[in-house]
Amino acid sequence: MDLVQKILQGDARSAARLMTMIENGSPEAVSALKSLYPHTGRAYVVGVTGPPGSGKSTLTDRITEELRRRDKTVGIVAVDPTSPFTGGAILADRIRMQRHSLDPGVFIRSMATRGHLGGLARATNDVVDVLDAAGKDYILIETVGVGQDEVEVVRAAHTSVVVAVPGMGDEIQAIKAGVMEIGDLFVVNKADRESADKTVMEIEMMLHLGKATEGWQPRVLKTVAVRSEGVGELTEAILEHQAFLQKDEGRRQKWKERSHWVFLELLQERVTARVIEKVAVNGTLDRLIERIAARETDPYSAVEEVLKKAGL
Amino acid sequence: MDLVQKILQGDARSAARLMTMIENGSPEAVSALKSLYPHTGRAYVVGVTGPPGSGKSTLTDRITEELRRRDKTVGIVAVDPTSPFTGGAILADRIRMQRHSLDPGVFIRSMATRGHLGGLARATNDVVDVLDAAGKDYILIETVGVGQDEVEVVRAAHTSVVVAVPGMGDEIQAIKAGVMEIGDLFVVNKADRESADKTVMEIEMMLHLGKATEGWQPRVLKTVAVRSEGVGELTEAILEHQAFLQKDEGRRQKWKERSHWVFLELLQERVTARVIEKVAVNGTLDRLIERIAARETDPYSAVEEVLKKAGL
Repeated sequence: MDLVQKILQGDARSAARLMTMIENGSPEAVSALKSLYPHTGRAYVVGVTGPPGSGKSTLTDRITEELRRRDKTVGIVAVDPTSPFTGGAILADRIRMQRHSLDPGVFIRSMATRGHLGGLARATNDVVDVLDAAGKDYILIETVGVGQDEVEVVRAAHTSVVVAVPGMGDEIQAIKAGVMEIGDLFVVNKADRESADKTVMEIEMMLHLGKATEGWQPRVLKTVAVRSEGVGELTEAILEHQAFLQKDEGRRQKWKERSHWVFLELLQERVTARVIEKVAVNGTLDRLIERIAARETDPYSAVEEVLKKAGL
Repeated sequence: MDLVQKILQGDARSAARLMTMIENGSPEAVSALKSLYPHTGRAYVVGVTGPPGSGKSTLTDRITEELRRRDKTVGIVAVDPTSPFTGGAILADRIRMQRHSLDPGVFIRSMATRGHLGGLARATNDVVDVLDAAGKDYILIETVGVGQDEVEVVRAAHTSVVVAVPGMGDEIQAIKAGVMEIGDLFVVNKADRESADKTVMEIEMMLHLGKATEGWQPRVLKTVAVRSEGVGELTEAILEHQAFLQKDEGRRQKWKERSHWVFLELLQERVTARVIEKVAVNGTLDRLIERIAARETDPYSAVEEVLKKAGL
């Protein structure tokens, strides 16, 4: 039986194998993804984003437990901006894997940040599609809420959960502001700290300043993830948002937005690769870069030259 | 006198105007950048990166003071992942502007993170080129060390300074690991905290694990930026690294790497825009995205279709 069939039947090892192929940019991954694509679109995708130290991994774990209690299967995609240098992502993964290792209803995958043409966002989308086709009911994407690509990944989710903690410095607040407009739900985690209510109030004030009063009203919740406090309520709020989107035709709209974004990400990657392939014969590209470095030409003129050569 | 001439003479208002044009994606910006490009390559570019709350803005300010004391002019580019929603970047900018507002030898610019096709890295490079052409001796690029694009921006600098603080949680350490291999200098800021020496040791251990023993040996320094402690030593270390690169032909190599990366960033942006322009007639693109959303086609096949139509 081939890889695609096995994945459609929910085989975790086959799914993991395809994910590795995706991360390595293997061409066979593309044909498998094409075959899987008609079977996607059933999973509900939740993005969980927050600054380092906000406890979003723990929160993701606890939301998973709540969803499992409701007999839902869960895929977790952790977008980890760590490097192969220390293996941070792998370690974190192992620790979490242990918690759910005996549960076939949970699948966890870490995505390491790569070089800038590596297409992290595209690879993350592909992994979400694999989990979707493999029949997972919910897919949780967990990412640090800083960085363009990382924010975009969460923006493409059906429900975006933004995690904050009480008493963080001004700079953290500024970071948080960067993801303010993408949040459907806001969570003040570690809410047993004394300044929790102040942080809740601050977020509510920011929301009142910026949001229109139509459609879904973002909510602010308190959790203590390490003790599972408030996670039941958070999970209920996610399900309510899901129900809201379904009623509101919002899910179709969100999916269209995601399709648009996924398409553009992929187009950007492929079209650049193709143009380079076309132009890079006989060291043309190297010479062009030498000339930019030597200031015999500028990057803009060089790119125009390449576009012309590629017939664009 | 035209914009380019004024910028070459160091006129700050003209430089600011071009930067706004760059951020707005104005076509006139491109012709100005082409004219300026032959006059670039003189400035020395320093990247300062660290997690939120590490005090890198204060550190950047104090390095600027040290460089001013040595009669060097300074341009600061702050890549701020804040949104127009709260105006965080603008506020931070104003506070800092006040410190240096009477000093014509310092120019500060904040770059806000934009949508994913907005080309933050490309725009940042363009702004660096403007400051370079305007005659600034040193350009400090300050950015949060998380996120693909943000790390790449710092990687393109001549000297990369990675800022950490003592006693941050495990997750912060993991983040830091993501920028470990790009650091030429490491700074433990807020070093008056008791666990500072432990953090210094940890970083040194990580460095010994990962780095080859050839070429520049990354150093770990301690600072208390708010009291300017250790900033003189840090500035000296930056100058030493500069001298090392000059001796080692390393600067030329770094500049070639930067040219390569700048070229690819720009190519990616332009080539995607051109292909979309070619294909997007009569709503073809919208229909394609509808079809992806409806699962009548998959993103990979859709992109192949577009490439074919564009003659690639």
